[in-house]
Amino acid sequence: VDLHFDTVTFLSDFGHGDEHVGVVHSVIRAIAPAAAVVDLTHEVAPYDVRGAGLLLARSAQYLCPGVVLAVVDPGAAGDRRALAVEVGDGASVLVGPDNGLLAPAVAMCGGATRAVELNVAEWHLDSAGPVSVGRDVLAPVAAHLCAGVPIDELGTGIDPALLLPGVLPVARPDGDELVAEVLWVDRFGNAQLNVDPDELAIFAGDDPVQLSFEGTSRVAMRARSHGEVGTGQVGLVTDAYGMVAVVVDRGSAAGDLGLVPSTEVRLRRVDEGDGGSGTRATGSVTTPVSLGSRQQTEEIR
Amino acid sequence: VDLHFDTVTFLSDFGHGDEHVGVVHSVIRAIAPAAAVVDLTHEVAPYDVRGAGLLLARSAQYLCPGVVLAVVDPGAAGDRRALAVEVGDGASVLVGPDNGLLAPAVAMCGGATRAVELNVAEWHLDSAGPVSVGRDVLAPVAAHLCAGVPIDELGTGIDPALLLPGVLPVARPDGDELVAEVLWVDRFGNAQLNVDPDELAIFAGDDPVQLSFEGTSRVAMRARSHGEVGTGQVGLVTDAYGMVAVVVDRGSAAGDLGLVPSTEVRLRRVDEGDGGSGTRATGSVTTPVSLGSRQQTEEIR
Amino acid sequence: VDLHFDTVTFLSDFGHGDEHVGVVHSVIRAIAPAAAVVDLTHEVAPYDVRGAGLLLARSAQYLCPGVVLAVVDPGAAGDRRALAVEVGDGASVLVGPDNGLLAPAVAMCGGATRAVELNVAEWHLDSAGPVSVGRDVLAPVAAHLCAGVPIDELGTGIDPALLLPGVLPVARPDGDELVAEVLWVDRFGNAQLNVDPDELAIFAGDDPVQLSFEGTSRVAMRARSHGEVGTGQVGLVTDAYGMVAVVVDRGSAAGDLGLVPSTEVRLRRVDEGDGGSGTRATGSVTTPVSLGSRQQTEEIR
Repeated sequence: VDLHFDTVTFLSDFGHGDEHVGVVHSVIRAIAPAAAVVDLTHEVAPYDVRGAGLLLARSAQYLCPGVVLAVVDPGAAGDRRALAVEVGDGASVLVGPDNGLLAPAVAMCGGATRAVELNVAEWHLDSAGPVSVGRDVLAPVAAHLCAGVPIDELGTGIDPALLLPGVLPVARPDGDELVAEVLWVDRFGNAQLNVDPDELAIFAGDDPVQLSFEGTSRVAMRARSHGEVGTGQVGLVTDAYGMVAVVVDRGSAAGDLGLVPSTEVRLRRVDEGDGGSGTRATGSVTTPVSLGSRQQTEEIR
Repeated sequence: VDLHFDTVTFLSDFGHGDEHVGVVHSVIRAIAPAAAVVDLTHEVAPYDVRGAGLLLARSAQYLCPGVVLAVVDPGAAGDRRALAVEVGDGASVLVGPDNGLLAPAVAMCGGATRAVELNVAEWHLDSAGPVSVGRDVLAPVAAHLCAGVPIDELGTGIDPALLLPGVLPVARPDGDELVAEVLWVDRFGNAQLNVDPDELAIFAGDDPVQLSFEGTSRVAMRARSHGEVGTGQVGLVTDAYGMVAVVVDRGSAAGDLGLVPSTEVRLRRVDEGDGGSGTRATGSVTTPVSLGSRQQTEEIR
Repeated sequence: VDLHFDTVTFLSDFGHGDEHVGVVHSVIRAIAPAAAVVDLTHEVAPYDVRGAGLLLARSAQYLCPGVVLAVVDPGAAGDRRALAVEVGDGASVLVGPDNGLLAPAVAMCGGATRAVELNVAEWHLDSAGPVSVGRDVLAPVAAHLCAGVPIDELGTGIDPALLLPGVLPVARPDGDELVAEVLWVDRFGNAQLNVDPDELAIFAGDDPVQLSFEGTSRVAMRARSHGEVGTGQVGLVTDAYGMVAVVVDRGSAAGDLGLVPSTEVRLRRVDEGDGGSGTRATGSVTTPVSLGSRQQTEEIR
């Protein structure tokens, strides 16, 4: 069997409670029986386009080249275009809705080299009722790509610059602060920030950093692992994806601090007074911030 | 590798909390390593033979030809026969317990062309204890079918007409009403009825329809999509399986109306008084029905 | 494609809520695309090394020869060694942390014939941050084993006798009692004991047996199936793994009796007084045991 791509990596918010995931596997297998389907996850929170897009971007460096099939969309069929987006001059193709879901992963892969709107019905399944986009459009298209159908036969070419951009928020400096946000809370409560460890170089050495969020601030120590973070302290570590994460040892930083995806977190040098003059502040300090002052409120949120 | 069937589609109520699903995969792979196993779902509610049978029937049109392995049975081993049921003159074989689980899918595939009771132990695994029917009988038989064992070597032939029939309830007219029931509530709360859109032709055009169930009635508008159903209204749409479903926009019809699988729903023309004379009723109306009157109670339940 | 092993059986506590399981599949596929990955389960309770080790041991007799990849470890990377343990003179290799997780399955397979510490970085993935042991060490090593890398190129040889032993508790006689413990509570509430049916031969015939646990005792009847256990009674049956289990009919023995994994259960002959003199006791009797008496407490716990 000669396949153009031999792997479909499949991500959705379908859950496992009914037959949706299995039917998509079956639809792909009927068209491209020699292709392997790797389930990335199907437990994305329903309609969580942002979370699914970031999950796909985090995973991208580990995925086999081939077709990525991503189905997370709060809209009904027909509300938006279905897309195939080529990256790496044909190394891989991402198939999904034009709602920003694919954009972070496409950016991680160096940007789109081609994109088409999936409007040639020849490659779709007929539905007994309204179209189920994942089952009737995206899955068969993913399989036909494996079987060798060229991307430009799948539909009308689109300028990739016109696709709906996704969220891949970048931390930005603001005076002597770094304005970041929580990308992801993992199941242990570690809160990944959109901060590369190199971006912490603006703070001296391994000095602690003050985190301000939601009207509160905490001093976080720099650590290489959870185990270095003392009891009751908050730590900043590099996580297994190479991003900066807010952690506590043997506990949930997100739970303790009230961090959720999209929470804005401002990082700045610890003031002399925060840690005691001349001593290195490693303990965490909570600084309640009045919400009554407009200036402070603006500074924080 | 030369397989008689190359796909086992596997459905169960095993859940994923322990090793049952994985062990069945392993048992199949040991016998027929080149066969692919497609997991339809394993999150059927424990022992829900009706729900699993309907799920399999809905999915049947999308499944790859081959072997279907279905394991949902409240009884203990030995309580009932294990079966292999051939459809399409050998195009596919369904393997499962003789408790009605396979019957809806068999009916969807045009009926059984052959059936055997799986009573030849040569094709089963030995168990260290009581037989686990899925692991020790059905899984190895599914694999042996892939590997080329003819169905009639698996056990004694049975007249398919004598198999336990399944639930594939058909809506029936009763005077000027159509007596239907809820087949399935999906995870969004859409309530699929056992009604083909053509059966609604007995009601004029796209007129609204009165739904009576559990002592209540609501007027449902006809719509092509959820988006056409106004806030606070109830809609009747054709779903992605080609069946009529009761829906609300951006909400759970089943939750709002108290519909669950098997709820009887009676559909009839909206009385003049229900929607206002001469005007087309598109708003939903709740008509409490007294449970005290025997006649009305009988009419409704 | 010529593989040394063609199957990776994969067990973890990753859950399905994020991309971990899918990324491991992808890492394996990139290195050994022709190997099949069989998911045993990923819903082991987080960090439950004991439960996962017993699950793997129960399953071992059903698994395809090849590589077993097991990832359950409460520690951080670097806290303990990562291992490859060969069994059956090379028939299979188990890959996992040196925390006792692999030991019960290794024992079930006749013991280790070779073991190495996975300390040759050539076979690992580079991480953008701290090492994720499953993704960066164990998964690529499992795949390289399939692709034909000999086990002794993966790291330094270790005397298997020095590996951390696992829990595979054995029931022991104590006077006229058999001291057992609950190995596993399945999802129906059946409580599997570490007792082989042959070990019950010390009690006469099919006589009922008194179970003492957590300061309480119950008389359990001997039965061949759940159905033989009367309403309100407790039964001892041989389960589908060939072990003795405490059950009730159509209910949860573990829930009714308060049994959890690791609960010590003492089995002894039913006293004449427990069941009435000269009559065969088949009804269950609850005998509260005072916790105040040191002697009794010691006897029970």
